[in-house]
Amino acid sequence: MADSDCTIYRASTTAPVNIAVIKYWGKRNATLNLPTNSSLSVTLSQRSLRTLTTASCSATYPAADSLTLNGKPQDIQSSKRTIACLSNLRSLRRALEEADPSLPKLSTLPLRIVSENNFPTAAGLASSAAGFAALVRAVADLYRLPQSPRDISRIARQGSGSACRSVMGGYVAWRAGTLADGSDSLAEEVAPASHWPEMRAMILVVSAEKKDVPSTDGMQTTVATSSLFATRAASVVPERMAAMEAAIRNKDFPAFAEITMRDSNSFHATCLDSWPPIFYMNDISRAAIRLVHDINCAVGRTVCAYTFDAGPNAVIYYLEKDSELVAGTFKAILSSSADGWDGPFGEPLKNITSPGVSLDKLDSRAVDILKEGVSRVILTGVGEGPVSVDEHLVSETGEIVTDRS
Amino acid sequence: MADSDCTIYRASTTAPVNIAVIKYWGKRNATLNLPTNSSLSVTLSQRSLRTLTTASCSATYPAADSLTLNGKPQDIQSSKRTIACLSNLRSLRRALEEADPSLPKLSTLPLRIVSENNFPTAAGLASSAAGFAALVRAVADLYRLPQSPRDISRIARQGSGSACRSVMGGYVAWRAGTLADGSDSLAEEVAPASHWPEMRAMILVVSAEKKDVPSTDGMQTTVATSSLFATRAASVVPERMAAMEAAIRNKDFPAFAEITMRDSNSFHATCLDSWPPIFYMNDISRAAIRLVHDINCAVGRTVCAYTFDAGPNAVIYYLEKDSELVAGTFKAILSSSADGWDGPFGEPLKNITSPGVSLDKLDSRAVDILKEGVSRVILTGVGEGPVSVDEHLVSETGEIVTDRS
Repeated sequence: MADSDCTIYRASTTAPVNIAVIKYWGKRNATLNLPTNSSLSVTLSQRSLRTLTTASCSATYPAADSLTLNGKPQDIQSSKRTIACLSNLRSLRRALEEADPSLPKLSTLPLRIVSENNFPTAAGLASSAAGFAALVRAVADLYRLPQSPRDISRIARQGSGSACRSVMGGYVAWRAGTLADGSDSLAEEVAPASHWPEMRAMILVVSAEKKDVPSTDGMQTTVATSSLFATRAASVVPERMAAMEAAIRNKDFPAFAEITMRDSNSFHATCLDSWPPIFYMNDISRAAIRLVHDINCAVGRTVCAYTFDAGPNAVIYYLEKDSELVAGTFKAILSSSADGWDGPFGEPLKNITSPGVSLDKLDSRAVDILKEGVSRVILTGVGEGPVSVDEHLVSETGEIVTDRS
Repeated sequence: MADSDCTIYRASTTAPVNIAVIKYWGKRNATLNLPTNSSLSVTLSQRSLRTLTTASCSATYPAADSLTLNGKPQDIQSSKRTIACLSNLRSLRRALEEADPSLPKLSTLPLRIVSENNFPTAAGLASSAAGFAALVRAVADLYRLPQSPRDISRIARQGSGSACRSVMGGYVAWRAGTLADGSDSLAEEVAPASHWPEMRAMILVVSAEKKDVPSTDGMQTTVATSSLFATRAASVVPERMAAMEAAIRNKDFPAFAEITMRDSNSFHATCLDSWPPIFYMNDISRAAIRLVHDINCAVGRTVCAYTFDAGPNAVIYYLEKDSELVAGTFKAILSSSADGWDGPFGEPLKNITSPGVSLDKLDSRAVDILKEGVSRVILTGVGEGPVSVDEHLVSETGEIVTDRS
């Protein structure tokens, strides 16, 4: 082992953001991140948004595990969630090492984990989901764990609930499960991205400020105080899960869209019904809602759907064939005030010069509010799960790579 | 009867606005205005807001009943609700006339009804409640009906649901009732104004624009589409009614305040959960909510409560003894941008020069939003029910009085 004492072991992965269409809100067990209800999301393409994480371990590292996020060292010891994930992964590695003594004893080495998002943290863009999915996937790859994505999702769930949905691509359900130990609370693929690859998502970035009430606190306030929440968790969501899975199987966009919008509204309704009340949407969010309804009404069929997470940003789903009607209309409204129209998903919009839906069919006040309040759009679409990459944030000699330009 | 052929019979009344603390939202019978749940309101002083209505009848009038509202002739024939109220009142008069043939046959004469609000119509200020309460009370007085306020409330309810609560003063419950004919759906006094006369209300007038979705349509959308509404109507409100009546009996302001705020939030949550979603509050409303929570937090006890009807205006309840803490703080924020600090309820604020709660304990962004968005305040308090007055909007010769300046 003299030689391997200096070895730097590395594995890097990218992981995607996911945006729920049936929302996760409320835990039945906060330590294990067990939800009160199942949820369902679309994994978004990593060509637009992704976390890149390198996990490495070496006997040459200082004894304590370390984590660097967007260039800033994090205090792992104060993050029970990170500790839970790493401890689970180490146990699995140890089991491998015990079964095959020829394997290097990676489970005994300190970890150096380095992660970078290509989007602002904590701006309502589900950075923790991509972050924990990437962390767990990267360490699992470093440890060469044979576990399936389902098993990996169970571990990622303990880092951040919605992270379990980011370990798979396409259309992903997080089954709430019923067991007390959480072993049946994990992600399942409803359909791969290839089943319905035409799904597009346009994110209207309303504010990159830190949000008022962190979702971890907010959801527990809702569980404890909203008198409407139990109905949502016990009966509204289970019905919607079944209907949404059918809509995805049948590639039925109008059904997908209506359930998505109604579930977003239902989630925010339980936030408003909390005590004290929680508001994530603002007047700009409401203007986006209004315009989505106006566009669907003007077109005469449902071509777009909004959804809002724990923040004011609107995510608008539509199908590629309706790019001109949906994204083209928003581009006509926002192109003078907001960036982000280029990039891999901007291609179909390049040659659009007039709105797909005549602006005089839209509420003019909502148009003005949106123009003033949206500074950036992100064009993306359904995409794949985590991908193993050769781009490393830890050098061959174990140093953190700080300048990648 | 030759002489009486030319007689102009007149009766005039004023009626108050009421602001619900347990909200009416949803009808189980739209024709009879029967609600899905009971509600409870505070009748506001007519020294601030009131409708003045004169009911008159005469054989000299044209054959059709007429109604003039704020100087504009209304089309009674197209208002089933007005017809229902007048028809009920005429039947009761007819019964009197049949029992006592010496009475003049007023039930056979055309009505001329003239009404004026001293506040903008349809601005979320419950103008229809005061309007129908005044109309029904004035005609009942004209007809010298012996019916009790409870009976009168049953008639006013058919004009506008919440109008039934404006036929009484103080703290008024509208019992939903269970009978199909609506005969047990009426208002009851929970406590007279004199029981708890210290209650104050400050209305922050956010916008006098006509509202987006009229409440009559909005509530039926909610009943038909919200998956959370049934829980509110069936279990949340009944519990709150009992708790609110106890709070009023015990003059327990913190309990009154918390139930008021939670019920407003619950009502707006079911609006947001409707399809398509209904929004009555905006960012200015939310700033008011934030400041109420901040003031209560800074004072260390619950000194104020917000509630919102089907519009963005905030109504803030507080007790007279806390005028400086509550109204004084809002005055410090708004006095440079909003009118309305004078008048009968402005007296305790006259000599206030600094905010009751230091502005640095309040969210500065909410302060700025409120300052920009509130143009007028109305200071008022709990008050009495309809009052018979000698000020008539129809002259002794039967003409509509147009210039009362």
